[in-house]
Amino acid sequence: MKDFFNVVTIEQALAFRSEFSKMKIETIPLMDAFERVLAEPVTATENLPDFRRSIMDGYAVCAASTFGATEGNPAFLAIKGTAHMGETPGFTVGIGEACRISTGGMLPDGADSVVMIEHTEAMDTSTIEIYRSAAPGQHVIETGEDFFKDDSLLPEGRRLRAQEIGLLAAFGKNTLKVYRKPVVAIISTGDEVVPITETPAPGKIRDINTYSLSSMVKACGAIPVSFGIIPDNSENLNQTLSLALKTSDMAMISGGSSVGVRDVTIDALSSLPEPRILFHGISISPGKPTILAISQNKALWGLPGHVVSAMVVFLKIVKPFIEHISGIKDHPFQTIRVPARLSRNLSSAQGRVDYVRVKLRQMNGNLLAEPVLGKSGLINTMVKADGLIEIGLNVEGLVQGEAVEVELFG
Amino acid sequence: MKDFFNVVTIEQALAFRSEFSKMKIETIPLMDAFERVLAEPVTATENLPDFRRSIMDGYAVCAASTFGATEGNPAFLAIKGTAHMGETPGFTVGIGEACRISTGGMLPDGADSVVMIEHTEAMDTSTIEIYRSAAPGQHVIETGEDFFKDDSLLPEGRRLRAQEIGLLAAFGKNTLKVYRKPVVAIISTGDEVVPITETPAPGKIRDINTYSLSSMVKACGAIPVSFGIIPDNSENLNQTLSLALKTSDMAMISGGSSVGVRDVTIDALSSLPEPRILFHGISISPGKPTILAISQNKALWGLPGHVVSAMVVFLKIVKPFIEHISGIKDHPFQTIRVPARLSRNLSSAQGRVDYVRVKLRQMNGNLLAEPVLGKSGLINTMVKADGLIEIGLNVEGLVQGEAVEVELFG
Repeated sequence: MKDFFNVVTIEQALAFRSEFSKMKIETIPLMDAFERVLAEPVTATENLPDFRRSIMDGYAVCAASTFGATEGNPAFLAIKGTAHMGETPGFTVGIGEACRISTGGMLPDGADSVVMIEHTEAMDTSTIEIYRSAAPGQHVIETGEDFFKDDSLLPEGRRLRAQEIGLLAAFGKNTLKVYRKPVVAIISTGDEVVPITETPAPGKIRDINTYSLSSMVKACGAIPVSFGIIPDNSENLNQTLSLALKTSDMAMISGGSSVGVRDVTIDALSSLPEPRILFHGISISPGKPTILAISQNKALWGLPGHVVSAMVVFLKIVKPFIEHISGIKDHPFQTIRVPARLSRNLSSAQGRVDYVRVKLRQMNGNLLAEPVLGKSGLINTMVKADGLIEIGLNVEGLVQGEAVEVELFG
Repeated sequence: MKDFFNVVTIEQALAFRSEFSKMKIETIPLMDAFERVLAEPVTATENLPDFRRSIMDGYAVCAASTFGATEGNPAFLAIKGTAHMGETPGFTVGIGEACRISTGGMLPDGADSVVMIEHTEAMDTSTIEIYRSAAPGQHVIETGEDFFKDDSLLPEGRRLRAQEIGLLAAFGKNTLKVYRKPVVAIISTGDEVVPITETPAPGKIRDINTYSLSSMVKACGAIPVSFGIIPDNSENLNQTLSLALKTSDMAMISGGSSVGVRDVTIDALSSLPEPRILFHGISISPGKPTILAISQNKALWGLPGHVVSAMVVFLKIVKPFIEHISGIKDHPFQTIRVPARLSRNLSSAQGRVDYVRVKLRQMNGNLLAEPVLGKSGLINTMVKADGLIEIGLNVEGLVQGEAVEVELFG
């Protein structure tokens, strides 16, 4: 039994992230910043809101003017004026007085609460009846209630969702510093692989990996660049890899699972400036024959050729490296893991982590994870599946009904 | 107590989706099709693979030649030749014979299985020892094992993940029909709203909704077009809405929560060609004062002005309409709901569905959903939250420890 591999665990593999620097920083308009990664911490430059706002249509009052008011025993208040939207009311409201106000309007001085219009009745143009007591602060957003000046708003490394974009708009961050998107080169190899526009001759197969891996790179917020299919010989691969290293921030060679191609891949990686092979094999299944090299601070991957293996290695290993250089700090719910129950027994070899494709099904309010079994060369198993479950390094298997966490595909 | 609303339930609101047609179809390159929606069913035009492939490096054999082989009692086989990658082997393999083969190589006629190289030893250039029995079909992908010719591959209406893109590559679908991306117009209103580049005068506030809603439109795979901030008067809004209707597939007016602005919004919607107000108010909180109108087969929304209300209404109501016109068919795990336990009691009014922002926390292997309470005008509550839980129409509240489903923010 030959050992082709210098095998690392998944934790050891992921620890090599620290060898790689983050992307450079660029300044972009806020309107383009959705899903980008913030490269600077952001602090509140003012109070939000910077004045007391009504959150209802009605009347701004002193709460004390309304204490004890009911439908049978209303409070009568004199209308002092109207708080026009976007303007400072030019008067104050005292006991026994009220000010017409709309949602979003600024409370006049003296008023401390708002009575909803539904709980009032206009007697004439200058007097209203109020049917309910207002508590101080009722239906009002206080100055700084959302954020106070100098509050920390967002840390560096946060990937921006819609609400973070809204938050930055609230503070007038019209442009902001983000990390550049990594450019990831994708190189297919294999004498049996033909472009998808060709009808494969007997023994040949179309290039799936360029397409599935490009999509996964996009899903990470990075930019895929396809270098096409490179014949299985060192010279071609050396040249292409050298070009990829110049023009990209990371490169992936897929298709080199057979021993011969793996050797060519290793040769090509070794031909780069100051190369180091960081590992050669990971104790996972599928995906064991994965290679990671570094040259000029860039990660260069030799991925397995089987379609499922390449995708699983991408999700579990390559993606965390892309996120690392993208500047994303760990965020607990960025990768979504859904608790479910396993539908059947699953065996597993000790000494490796197994990733099993599963389909999810609702059952009695719980989720059932049904393994989609099949060889890692079969893409139908990925198309049928909703996500992956993990069987740990030293676990012999999982039993039916056992609790599992399903990492959903994007 | 005045009733401003003609209120529908959330189910009634969503049922109005059937009033709107799907987007037109366009043909695009596969490389651009990630996350697009397929507008045609796709069928297998050939077997995948179209030949018997090895999934290991080793020797293709007749399994019967190896029966009973062990390390102590190996089988001796004559090497007939090599299956070169991407080529049809020009010979057959019989009993007592073997063929060198790499991962992905085509099996020669006669061979029915592959013995891994690790379980063999070359005696000389023409003979190998085999140490394990092979079962027929072992380490082989049969012709059509992934898909048979004429198998249904993907239905119309499927949003394409990385694996679907790979699948389409496997069958040479270099271009494909997808639904066009909807263009969604975003109009902000309110005399108190200023562009984010301005420092708000007292009583004014920056335009958050244009930014948060644009991001959410992008997250749906649609294209946002901002029409800026339109003053609160009918003429301006009529003109802008009329332009939006001509150039977009859907329009949203946000900020019209106060009675006056709501009236102006209704007036503007009514000024469009053959307008119909489909509903005016939904029994949800936050988000009750939502308006949906139709004109020329396009949906026109009056969204509440509060930042949180606008985002919740977008996620729960507008997004399903965008998905509908985008051609997306229901897919169980497209919207991700994570089971969790509630961290505290929550009360709720009957007769409406409440959406409560929650933060998720891992606790003893389970997820705890902690409500992020706060007024719907406060964006900090959305920034702190990971998702939403729902309290049903006729539920008075939820108790601590109760099982809830959290719909995660994208």
